[in-house]
Amino acid sequence: MRIAEIGEFGLISKIASLIDAEGDRQSPARRDLLLGIGDDAAAWKSPGGIELITTDILVEDVHFDFSYTGWKDLGWKSMAINISDINSMGGRPRYALASLALPGRREAEDVLDLYRGILEISNKYGVAVAGGNISAADKVVINITLTGIAGGDMLTRTSAQPGDLVAIFGFPGLSAAGHKALSQFINLDAEALQLFKNAHLRPAPDFNSGPLLADLGVRTAIDISDGLAADLAHICVASGVAATLHTGKLPVHPLLIKYFGRDSLRISLAGGEDYELLFTATPEVMKKVNASFDPAPAIIGEITAGKPHAVSLLDEGGNPVHIDFGGWDHYKHPD
Amino acid sequence: MRIAEIGEFGLISKIASLIDAEGDRQSPARRDLLLGIGDDAAAWKSPGGIELITTDILVEDVHFDFSYTGWKDLGWKSMAINISDINSMGGRPRYALASLALPGRREAEDVLDLYRGILEISNKYGVAVAGGNISAADKVVINITLTGIAGGDMLTRTSAQPGDLVAIFGFPGLSAAGHKALSQFINLDAEALQLFKNAHLRPAPDFNSGPLLADLGVRTAIDISDGLAADLAHICVASGVAATLHTGKLPVHPLLIKYFGRDSLRISLAGGEDYELLFTATPEVMKKVNASFDPAPAIIGEITAGKPHAVSLLDEGGNPVHIDFGGWDHYKHPD
Repeated sequence: MRIAEIGEFGLISKIASLIDAEGDRQSPARRDLLLGIGDDAAAWKSPGGIELITTDILVEDVHFDFSYTGWKDLGWKSMAINISDINSMGGRPRYALASLALPGRREAEDVLDLYRGILEISNKYGVAVAGGNISAADKVVINITLTGIAGGDMLTRTSAQPGDLVAIFGFPGLSAAGHKALSQFINLDAEALQLFKNAHLRPAPDFNSGPLLADLGVRTAIDISDGLAADLAHICVASGVAATLHTGKLPVHPLLIKYFGRDSLRISLAGGEDYELLFTATPEVMKKVNASFDPAPAIIGEITAGKPHAVSLLDEGGNPVHIDFGGWDHYKHPD
Repeated sequence: MRIAEIGEFGLISKIASLIDAEGDRQSPARRDLLLGIGDDAAAWKSPGGIELITTDILVEDVHFDFSYTGWKDLGWKSMAINISDINSMGGRPRYALASLALPGRREAEDVLDLYRGILEISNKYGVAVAGGNISAADKVVINITLTGIAGGDMLTRTSAQPGDLVAIFGFPGLSAAGHKALSQFINLDAEALQLFKNAHLRPAPDFNSGPLLADLGVRTAIDISDGLAADLAHICVASGVAATLHTGKLPVHPLLIKYFGRDSLRISLAGGEDYELLFTATPEVMKKVNASFDPAPAIIGEITAGKPHAVSLLDEGGNPVHIDFGGWDHYKHPD
């Protein structure tokens, strides 16, 4: 069966089964492994704490388009998405490696700009760029690998419990709005253009939030990369629970409503690449979280004991809302 | 200036300078860093020892050609080249992440074959495959990241001293012969075809040699990826020394001589992707090494105090031999 038919998540699931069946489970490395395939980062026990590692590949014309993406922003974003993965595990980032495939016709100065963006966010979050690799290719490919370290407790996708509240930071959908604005030349005022564009090209949530949440007793989190609804579904599948979201509680940005009207709710739920944290916690823990963050996260729903994967949507009157909020699959995206 | 003009190593040198100038040197991660850009792997201090990490990107039609490369062998090789990097630092590999860019038209079963090759060599060397990432793309790109751990002392490129002897394991050039045989359809007997092909498609040196060498007191090593002469030059530049090689002492495989005649010496010196260890050590340490390995490595030359980068070649009569042994640069390769 072709990859396009089985889809990204179908393929990952087959790979995970193969590793489970044929990987040596008796090796010392395997015995120290806490989390393999299936979370935002892999994790293992070490004498210094819990070590984390994550990797992300960005491909020209799949993940970015040089007609509206600058090299420095691209460097920032390629590192940001990995820092986000470490943050969403409750960890702090440490060392980065950058593997680059670069056509020979590209300018060396552009590659240095890419590194300037990488270094800008790396310096902000204490990441040391420790190495990498360069190869020829027809298109630009950027693969960043980032290590991190977590304290006693991690944030995972597997620990959500019925009764947990569901919360998010920031306004979901702004990156998707930026992608639309940049690729479809939507006419916007300067403030909206700036907001949407920055959200897409240079995501800058507070990537220190994960360890703080872990310290407050939160155990379940994911970063919004595939889309709020899809990422909540990832948590539900991994934890064997369901979830209900309330449209009236979703923080939909006023400028999203202004320019996208009725579609703004769908964009908030389906738009990916926000890299804000989506997390669940008991009402008691959520109270502490609310008192500790300014602005506080928005509580948008709750975890239930229903059929896993089922994310239900209710309007302010408690009636079901039907929106196709899809979610990102590299081989099944609609546009 | 275009990347093609400045070349792979010119670009890496500019990136290293930029990181040195603009990367935050005060961060805790940076202060624990032992080796950044410029060796086979990055290294830092941790409570459990010295941690190592390496990454390598393989691009379809640049590093491999599906007209003669099977997916399982490709999986083996993509992991082997990273295990080799950890071995050449004197470390043992631990956790691997695989980032894949895959066209949707490719078969899912082929990707599972890739993982079967990855798992085969991972099981052999105690590596746990801990995660990864899949993206769409026009061509197949495989980026493996591998962590490792070293005991008290590492093998680096920077510690060669005048008076050290230079030694290698195995027969250099067999992988290059395999590449020629496969891509240019050279007519070979079955034994030679098998030997050359395996060396190129499924490199299998003993990747346990590095930690053993480190225990015996060796401090300088590199794996032969760019070519014996070029990789020795990497050591010379990093250590600020020169080197002399003796053509009469080079282990040139009889089948290489049989099929490539006078060119076999150049292929041994210039051919890359052998992944055998090239190392230097004092005569006393080398004596211990020779007694500890069977087959023993071949002593092929010595480190001198001459102009760095200068690798001289002498024939059995002590006369200079002039061979253009080039060495791999992604943007400057001859064929």
